[in-house]
Amino acid sequence: MQTWTAIRARRHVRSYQDRPIAPADLDQILEAGRVAPSWSNKQARDFVVVTDRDRLAELASVSPAAGHVRGSAAAVGFVVPDDDAMIVQYAYDAGQATMLMAIAAVALGIGSAPAEIGNGEKLRTVLCLPAGQRCLHVLAFGYPADGPLDPTTKLHRRPFDQVVHRDRW
Amino acid sequence: MQTWTAIRARRHVRSYQDRPIAPADLDQILEAGRVAPSWSNKQARDFVVVTDRDRLAELASVSPAAGHVRGSAAAVGFVVPDDDAMIVQYAYDAGQATMLMAIAAVALGIGSAPAEIGNGEKLRTVLCLPAGQRCLHVLAFGYPADGPLDPTTKLHRRPFDQVVHRDRW
Repeated sequence: MQTWTAIRARRHVRSYQDRPIAPADLDQILEAGRVAPSWSNKQARDFVVVTDRDRLAELASVSPAAGHVRGSAAAVGFVVPDDDAMIVQYAYDAGQATMLMAIAAVALGIGSAPAEIGNGEKLRTVLCLPAGQRCLHVLAFGYPADGPLDPTTKLHRRPFDQVVHRDRW
Repeated sequence: MQTWTAIRARRHVRSYQDRPIAPADLDQILEAGRVAPSWSNKQARDFVVVTDRDRLAELASVSPAAGHVRGSAAAVGFVVPDDDAMIVQYAYDAGQATMLMAIAAVALGIGSAPAEIGNGEKLRTVLCLPAGQRCLHVLAFGYPADGPLDPTTKLHRRPFDQVVHRDRW
């Protein structure tokens, strides 16, 4: 798929077909996250990729905002050091890795949507996180149940001329 | 350019040819940022795109980390509401928009690199920011001076099997 088509076809997908993602395709999505840039190239992030159905259901139950994880084919937890002083940089880097994974997925016909999952003990237990690490968010993946990803889909966005300022605000 | 090629060819580019970016191409890069997802789809972000050479030089002088902005063809300031309570979400969203812009640029043969520029008065003056808004970072764009973007370039990254954990940490 052409890059611009993938960028335009990306949308949040929270309803998935009951169809697994081939391991090579899932690894390609994760590879897109691995090569993402990071603050000072610290790469202070790990990805916990969950495909086990019982564990996906447990993840989904961690937060009301994570319900779509239950029906996903795979979910990736973005894990970073639990360091409040670095949280803004880590969040920025997680955003960068999120979009590279999402775009790599679109090119494979796979949709995605993030889930905010807090930082509770249940989440830590499900992902078996060690002390000193926290999961910023979970990104769920799967083949869209509501039709293929389509670059002509209209997203609800502010108009270009309102968002973009030329040379000065 | 194929999506996977663009993902693999992306790298930070801080040295640029003395060559402008065609307005339609620059707008396509900005459009990639406009369609990026955001927390609760709030889209609480504006892009100030600078192409004026004097203003680029002023931007470059704002911070020692922004030197590469001087020779860039264009620089985009990511502006968000100045709200400490939302800074983590805004940073995550800025990371998402950053990577969509960067990938859209790669597909056009254009490199990019972010610059941390603080939140000082000089920056605010250069971008003419109104009260209540702050610029999180600047993303500089230009045609690479050190050779074309190449998907075979080796990035310094932690090994896949160290970064990726299966089903649990």
